[in-house]
Amino acid sequence: MRFRFKQPVPLSLLRPPLPASAFRSLSQHSSFGIAFDIDGVILRGANPIGNSQRALRRLYNDSGSLKIPFLFLTNGGGIPESRRALELSDILGVKILPSQVVQGHSPFKTLLKRYENEFIVATGKGEPDVVMSEYGFKRVVSLDEYASYFSNIDPVAQYKRWTTRQESKCSKNSDKIIHQGYSKKVKAVFVVSDPVDWGRDIQVLCDILTSGGIPGEKSWHQPPLYFAADDLQYQAAFPSERLGMGAFRIALESVFNRIHEKPLELTCFGKPNPLVFRNAETILGHLLQSDVRRGNGDPGPGSPSFKTLYMIGDNPLVDIKGAQQAGHPWFSILTRSGVFRQRENHTQYPADLVVDTVEDAVAFILKREDAS
Amino acid sequence: MRFRFKQPVPLSLLRPPLPASAFRSLSQHSSFGIAFDIDGVILRGANPIGNSQRALRRLYNDSGSLKIPFLFLTNGGGIPESRRALELSDILGVKILPSQVVQGHSPFKTLLKRYENEFIVATGKGEPDVVMSEYGFKRVVSLDEYASYFSNIDPVAQYKRWTTRQESKCSKNSDKIIHQGYSKKVKAVFVVSDPVDWGRDIQVLCDILTSGGIPGEKSWHQPPLYFAADDLQYQAAFPSERLGMGAFRIALESVFNRIHEKPLELTCFGKPNPLVFRNAETILGHLLQSDVRRGNGDPGPGSPSFKTLYMIGDNPLVDIKGAQQAGHPWFSILTRSGVFRQRENHTQYPADLVVDTVEDAVAFILKREDAS
Repeated sequence: MRFRFKQPVPLSLLRPPLPASAFRSLSQHSSFGIAFDIDGVILRGANPIGNSQRALRRLYNDSGSLKIPFLFLTNGGGIPESRRALELSDILGVKILPSQVVQGHSPFKTLLKRYENEFIVATGKGEPDVVMSEYGFKRVVSLDEYASYFSNIDPVAQYKRWTTRQESKCSKNSDKIIHQGYSKKVKAVFVVSDPVDWGRDIQVLCDILTSGGIPGEKSWHQPPLYFAADDLQYQAAFPSERLGMGAFRIALESVFNRIHEKPLELTCFGKPNPLVFRNAETILGHLLQSDVRRGNGDPGPGSPSFKTLYMIGDNPLVDIKGAQQAGHPWFSILTRSGVFRQRENHTQYPADLVVDTVEDAVAFILKREDAS
Repeated sequence: MRFRFKQPVPLSLLRPPLPASAFRSLSQHSSFGIAFDIDGVILRGANPIGNSQRALRRLYNDSGSLKIPFLFLTNGGGIPESRRALELSDILGVKILPSQVVQGHSPFKTLLKRYENEFIVATGKGEPDVVMSEYGFKRVVSLDEYASYFSNIDPVAQYKRWTTRQESKCSKNSDKIIHQGYSKKVKAVFVVSDPVDWGRDIQVLCDILTSGGIPGEKSWHQPPLYFAADDLQYQAAFPSERLGMGAFRIALESVFNRIHEKPLELTCFGKPNPLVFRNAETILGHLLQSDVRRGNGDPGPGSPSFKTLYMIGDNPLVDIKGAQQAGHPWFSILTRSGVFRQRENHTQYPADLVVDTVEDAVAFILKREDAS
């Protein structure tokens, strides 16, 4: 079995230092910041909704430099933050920096110390192995590629006229990079983004996780399993909600627990995990500090503290629950443009404010902060 | 929305009358018959195992006509019985008749009266709509085709370089047959064989079943859902067992029950359902009667009764449990060539006999019945 690993990209390339011009006038409104969910708030599929372009432009001054510190806080993913920032800039018509994009899988970076040189498998739509490789993981392969090394592991593969990105590359590149000496035992599995081929993924994950990391062997020790998020449903381009990574997790867990004596163990990142909101606060603080260091204000000693941070989201169970659990300084705004559509506030996780669109939310914030 | 329905095939084409020559000498051993499971007993993937070819040849006399009444009793499927009979004849080197092939979905024929002219959806590997159409259902579409009529119903479709049989046909055939006046409401869903695209199927089935048959609508009435079988795992070409239709059922059920208030209702056919064994007994009886009518013995009044019917299978929870539940005249033989591999008998569902291969099983039967 030979695995081809991605060439790691220096971390410095992923988070370019913020250009001074981008934050010229940040300090004048340093007491608050904004976190935007993307799907169902800013975009539906690849299309802007709720006048999101116009709303975001209000956070920049006329010269195009940033006025209000904000970031995107999404449970989505599948491509590196740098590329997602370029995509969002293109769609929304404002300059988004990679540091302003926090995806579901972004916290996987915190596991680098543990798995940097371990053999790990990553799955999900897009380029899960590229994402992990850019975080610095040196021995990551996609589940697409991993599965391709086991004949007949997917019993319905013959019915799929399906060429995954990895497999098509493999077939062209017979001269694979061989990493001799790497253990073939899978040390951890990362669900980076929404899985595409549920049946194959559930089968291969069961093979890896019931065997201690080598399909076909028997073991009680389950390699750790990490999910970038746990959204049951989310608002995509289809009129009604679509099943998300949380639904895949439920499917995997229920099947695994039927074929294995020991229940599946896993860790979920992403909203509503309060750590995600703490991390967002830190990043917004960095945005501000970069500006302060350039002499545009006095934050006082230590890292800057915000009077208010606004979370604008469409999903009560993810965005609003998360902001509530995170507590001060989070203020939650629920839009009616995605998963949530009701007139009245959500019963179980009522937001601090309910509005129709992200444009309404931004208008409220700028008025409240006297920053319009 | 326009659906293209298969042209129904007359039932008379599916079950050709048995040729007299095939059963010339059946009556001399009329007191017993045999039901063979296929996967893990006769074949692994498309390859014969356990000397199955040699074992089956012992059930025919030298001229190639059938000596012992037998049939295949599999939970697999996805193609019409007539075609499966040809495939098996080709692989095994003996003449198998369509009436000797009972697949997981064969009992769906019993629902013809209820759904013959209703709009139904069929899913699974192979050609689920062709299977149903050949049973006589007149308004059946595959889930592949059904899904293709809803833009963005599968949110990860763009990541699949996947062309299903139906879709490729659709794209070539823009001049579709339009069945005006058919209700667009799905009246029932049939899982005919192992689903290929679990994520898409679970999504679309949830859409149909939570909406009362029209995705996007709200309804408490769930259209009936039928499964051809409920095998959790089965032995395919991969060394360890693969997830089967029962695993898909668990995944669908667990996700559905999280997004819908009312629990999923469904009906499973296939082994170990005792009705499947009763049906097999009837078919083996017909095989015998066809022979008796031709003057080769006297069965007495009514349908013939067997002293012993042998079920040869590799799965204790499916084949052995099923034969036990069916009771007299079933005698269960468990082979060690598939799912089951242990030295000792299965604890929960012990078989009447445990052998290594199907050849051993047939040798035992012919000796016991003094028919070798």
